[in-house]
Amino acid sequence: MALRRIKLVIEYDGSFYHGWQIQRDLPSVQEEIEKAIFRVTGEKVSVTGSGRTDTGVHACGQVAHFDTESRIPSEKFAIVLNTVLPPSVAVLSSKEVSPDFHARFSAVKKTYKYKVLNRPMRSPIMEKRAWHVPVPLDIDKMNKAAAYFLGLHDFTAFCASGHSVTNFVRYIYESGWTYENECLVYTVTGNGFLYNMVRIMTGTMVEVGMNKRPAESIPELLEKKNRRLAGITAPPHGLYLWEVFYDEELPDGRPGTEKENWSDE
Amino acid sequence: MALRRIKLVIEYDGSFYHGWQIQRDLPSVQEEIEKAIFRVTGEKVSVTGSGRTDTGVHACGQVAHFDTESRIPSEKFAIVLNTVLPPSVAVLSSKEVSPDFHARFSAVKKTYKYKVLNRPMRSPIMEKRAWHVPVPLDIDKMNKAAAYFLGLHDFTAFCASGHSVTNFVRYIYESGWTYENECLVYTVTGNGFLYNMVRIMTGTMVEVGMNKRPAESIPELLEKKNRRLAGITAPPHGLYLWEVFYDEELPDGRPGTEKENWSDE
Repeated sequence: MALRRIKLVIEYDGSFYHGWQIQRDLPSVQEEIEKAIFRVTGEKVSVTGSGRTDTGVHACGQVAHFDTESRIPSEKFAIVLNTVLPPSVAVLSSKEVSPDFHARFSAVKKTYKYKVLNRPMRSPIMEKRAWHVPVPLDIDKMNKAAAYFLGLHDFTAFCASGHSVTNFVRYIYESGWTYENECLVYTVTGNGFLYNMVRIMTGTMVEVGMNKRPAESIPELLEKKNRRLAGITAPPHGLYLWEVFYDEELPDGRPGTEKENWSDE
Repeated sequence: MALRRIKLVIEYDGSFYHGWQIQRDLPSVQEEIEKAIFRVTGEKVSVTGSGRTDTGVHACGQVAHFDTESRIPSEKFAIVLNTVLPPSVAVLSSKEVSPDFHARFSAVKKTYKYKVLNRPMRSPIMEKRAWHVPVPLDIDKMNKAAAYFLGLHDFTAFCASGHSVTNFVRYIYESGWTYENECLVYTVTGNGFLYNMVRIMTGTMVEVGMNKRPAESIPELLEKKNRRLAGITAPPHGLYLWEVFYDEELPDGRPGTEKENWSDE
C-alpha cells in the first residue's frame, strides 16, 4: 500500500496523563495513540501533535498526524482506534491529508478555553474539570482586561521561564469571558501560545476579577515584559485545548503564522 | 448543647459510589457523610437522605438531615464537613431546620436531569457524566413525548419491578428536553418518582428520538401499565438528582404530596 498521511482530531481527559508528549515510564496521550495505532495496524509509527499539553490539561480538539501503509480507510481510523483506546482518550475524526500537512508547523491558529468554577463550595462533578475560585469575580473587569490582549503583543510577561523560545510576539484574534452555568469561561484564539501563556493570562485576569489589580495594568504588564509582575499561573485542570486551525480552514486573510520554534502549552 | 436538626444540600459524583444508601463493605455517599460528621463532631449520627440514588447516579442537590449536639454553628457545617469529605462529595449548604423537618417525608417535589451526549464519537470529558447515544435524535419528537408525562398519571409502565410500592400515581410539573452544547438534557420535576422511573422514561423517549416508536405511544404506555411495553432503562451515569423541594419553598398551591412509601430512584 502507498503511504498516506492521516490527520486525527483527539479529545482527552488530561487528569489521567502526564501531558501529551511521550515520557519514559509516565503515561502520555501520545503513547496511548501510538499504542492504539500499533494494535490496529501493526505499524510502529510516530504521532506528531499540534503541540504539547501539560499534565492535567484537557483537549477537545488536539490535532495530530501520522503516516501509515495500512489498508484501513482514512475516515474509519477514528472508529477503529476508539475501540482500543482507553475511556480517557477518543479520536473524534480522521481523514487523509496532503503529505506536506504537519500538525504542528501547518497550524495557523489555536483556541484554548479556561473554565473557572466561581461559587463558594467546590464541585465533585467539576472536580479536575475547572479551577475552583470561591470568592466573587467581577466578569466585567475580567473582560476589560481580556480585551487588552487582542492584537499583536509581546507576551514575555506571560511566559514561564526555562524554554528556548526567542520570539515572544503573538497575535490574539479572540479573548473574552462568558458565563456557562456556574463557570466563567475564558476563550482565547491566537496564532500561537508560549509556555503556560493561557494559564498566566487567566491567573492575572482572575486577580483583576478579585480587585487585586486593575484591568488597566495589563498594557503595562505587556510593556514591561517581566513575568514576576504578572499574576499566578492558573492550575492546569481548568485548561482545554479547544481547536487547532489550519490554512484550508482560515476563512480570510488575517495575519498568518511564523514557523519559529513555538513552545505551545 | 441542645439537639439541633441540620439540613444539608449535597453534591456527589456517583461513579465512585454504590449509591446513596449505606451497604456493608461497599462505598456509599451516606457512609461518607456519616464518617465526616463523626470526624468533626465525634458523634455517631444517622443521616437521612431525601431518597436513594443508584450506583453511578450523580447528585447536584441531594438533601439530607441529621441531629447533633455539637457546638459547630449550623451554617458552618458545610465548610467544616468539606475539609474532611473526599473530592467526590461536597456539602453545598447547611442550615438548622425545625425538628419535624424530614429530608424524605417533608419533600414535596424533586427535579432530576438526564444528560444524553448525542454525537458520533464518545467523549472522554463527559465519560461517566452523560449517556452516549451515537445516532441522531429528533429532539422535537422527544419533546412531544415528554409533554405526555405532564400532570397526574399512573407510572406503572415506567417502574422497575421488585419493589413494595402500591401507589404508582405521580404528578409531573415539568418535563422537557433542551440542548446544552453537545448534550440533550431532560429536565423532569414531579411530586415523587418510582424506582428507575426517570431512566425508563428517558430510555423510552430516546427510542422516540430514534424513530423506533412514535411520541403518541406514550399515552398508550401509561394506559396499559405494562413495563415490558416501555423502552429500555437508560444507564445510571447520565442521571442527576438536581433539586429537592420542601414546603417552605413551594411557591403556589400546586398538588401536594402523598406520604406513602415512595421508592425514589
